[in-house]
Amino acid sequence: MSKSPEVEHPKKAFGWAAKDPSGVLSPFNFSRRNTEEEDVAFKVLFCGICHSDLHSIKNEWGMAKYPLVPGHEIVGVVTEVGNKVTKFKVGDKVGVGCMVGACHSCSSCSSDLENYCPKVIFTYGGTYYDGTPTYGGYSDSMVANERYVVKMPESIPLDASAPLLCAGITVYSPLKHFELNKPGMHIGVVGLGGLGHVAVKFAKAFGAKVTVISTSPAKQTEAIEHLGADSFLVSRNPEQMQAAMGTLDGIIDTVSAQHPLLPLLALLKSQGKIVMVGAPDRPLELPVFPLLMGRKIIAGSCIGGMKETQEMIDFAGKHNITADIEVISMDYVNTAMERLAKADVRYRFVIDVGNTLNKA
Amino acid sequence: MSKSPEVEHPKKAFGWAAKDPSGVLSPFNFSRRNTEEEDVAFKVLFCGICHSDLHSIKNEWGMAKYPLVPGHEIVGVVTEVGNKVTKFKVGDKVGVGCMVGACHSCSSCSSDLENYCPKVIFTYGGTYYDGTPTYGGYSDSMVANERYVVKMPESIPLDASAPLLCAGITVYSPLKHFELNKPGMHIGVVGLGGLGHVAVKFAKAFGAKVTVISTSPAKQTEAIEHLGADSFLVSRNPEQMQAAMGTLDGIIDTVSAQHPLLPLLALLKSQGKIVMVGAPDRPLELPVFPLLMGRKIIAGSCIGGMKETQEMIDFAGKHNITADIEVISMDYVNTAMERLAKADVRYRFVIDVGNTLNKA
Repeated sequence: MSKSPEVEHPKKAFGWAAKDPSGVLSPFNFSRRNTEEEDVAFKVLFCGICHSDLHSIKNEWGMAKYPLVPGHEIVGVVTEVGNKVTKFKVGDKVGVGCMVGACHSCSSCSSDLENYCPKVIFTYGGTYYDGTPTYGGYSDSMVANERYVVKMPESIPLDASAPLLCAGITVYSPLKHFELNKPGMHIGVVGLGGLGHVAVKFAKAFGAKVTVISTSPAKQTEAIEHLGADSFLVSRNPEQMQAAMGTLDGIIDTVSAQHPLLPLLALLKSQGKIVMVGAPDRPLELPVFPLLMGRKIIAGSCIGGMKETQEMIDFAGKHNITADIEVISMDYVNTAMERLAKADVRYRFVIDVGNTLNKA
Repeated sequence: MSKSPEVEHPKKAFGWAAKDPSGVLSPFNFSRRNTEEEDVAFKVLFCGICHSDLHSIKNEWGMAKYPLVPGHEIVGVVTEVGNKVTKFKVGDKVGVGCMVGACHSCSSCSSDLENYCPKVIFTYGGTYYDGTPTYGGYSDSMVANERYVVKMPESIPLDASAPLLCAGITVYSPLKHFELNKPGMHIGVVGLGGLGHVAVKFAKAFGAKVTVISTSPAKQTEAIEHLGADSFLVSRNPEQMQAAMGTLDGIIDTVSAQHPLLPLLALLKSQGKIVMVGAPDRPLELPVFPLLMGRKIIAGSCIGGMKETQEMIDFAGKHNITADIEVISMDYVNTAMERLAKADVRYRFVIDVGNTLNKA
């Protein structure tokens, strides 16, 4: 029989957890393992709130195990390192993203794509090698094998860079892998939320001309004046969409609601690519003829490997890319979740864990 | 006002044409242009019957102009060459596939991808540079700019290689472009018809392990014993499909009927690719989650450029690849069309134009 979360490991930990599918988060005492020889332990300072956290605490994907401590955009300061750790030392600013383990022997792991490993261990809601549950970053402390820890750049603020560990790599990886990172390319970003606003920034940093495509005309000013997009298309405006036909080299589609692909395919040049990073829960309609006519591609992409995550964060540091955030205190988290469900945030909540997680 | 087909050009020509959307083909007198300086004129010996011919004569794609002489798998012997022609001489065995012109200035044309040029001129049913209609290979003679003429290999029979000019390049091009031509790869071919049976042969010649996926268990023996496939899956057999999950590097999907993509996506390894070369007339259902989870791709591909068509036919000559054909006489063509509509052919009809097209 497994021990209770509070005593299954030697180190006391404290965070906020969902206890059932109501998704309401409340204080939670649990424990973390000792810092093993390849482990990095750190004090959590900030943790971003990803839309996945909301899906998970409400068990909308049907895989939740309670109590569930969410959070996979975790940054903090190293407090202890195992004796075989080579990349980190006490005092370093570090981060952990969506995963903390994988098999390290499959073809994906061998290609530094732990994210596509069939045995990937997610940062929360997963089961670690030792059989114990994994708990995320809505908590005072974190421990992870150094392979899954990234060094955070000094040049960008820690709070606003936390969301890059999920939202950032989710858009950076496909831009790079699908060769949509060549200067002078014309890239479309569909949806201007947590993922989309970061996609605009990375695509601009790669030297692209960027067009934001959104159902909401109200976002035009924000997209162009604040985020630096070059142009804006209202996807429900047929004249605008028609005028932009055949202009895009690639599209990063961040929308997880149902939406038509045909108008997006029409925006692509011959041999253009749509990469889906949002996951609509029902199938989309795929018109095949337009795919054939221009040797077009529809692909999916899911976060990125650890090597690429470090590369992404270094790139962000160099190009001064951060997420636009609203910093909140831990006890605001349930309200934040309600607002997130209504897309009422520009563009990412980040919990100030270090200053506001007070043990009751 | 345009002249009648019989006198709009100086050279008399004779073939069979559909006169209306009934699609019935009957003898037709028309004319061909003089052999211009970059042109190759040839006597047609054989012409394959492609499923597109059937769609076109019945105006199922809504673009037909009558009278319509179909045929874009055309082979024959050169009778005359223009004075600037460098690649061909009288007596050469040559072929013309799906197209006879393009803009030659767009990015697709500049990359030897005339097939994706927005101004591509199809071999029949199109409008040539001079404003006259193009007529296909169900006819005694053909003339084309040498850019659109390929040299047929001596090592394979002319009749059985004619279908390669459309069916062959349609499957060769995506295998190569999407890097599914690496020896040792495991390739799936969905649908065992005119395209599929040639896809099996090319994939085998590239050194792949090939699995045929079909709704029809009756095709297993044919696929394995006759065409050389390594294995066979009945797509409607869930146990077989389940057992093969995650085994394929890529899939060439030749099916133009409605069919589910989810089971095909499940057959792919991480980062596997499905390339559609058939064109279902209604959208297919695209489940996005499986696409994301393995960075999978669904792409379309449409024939191939002229440079690649020559490369394909040379490869076929070297590896002794031909289509499996049923040679018919010209006056059997309407019956052949009826049989083709019922998929009653293994696997391609080829009209013996040279011996059976008798002027009434």
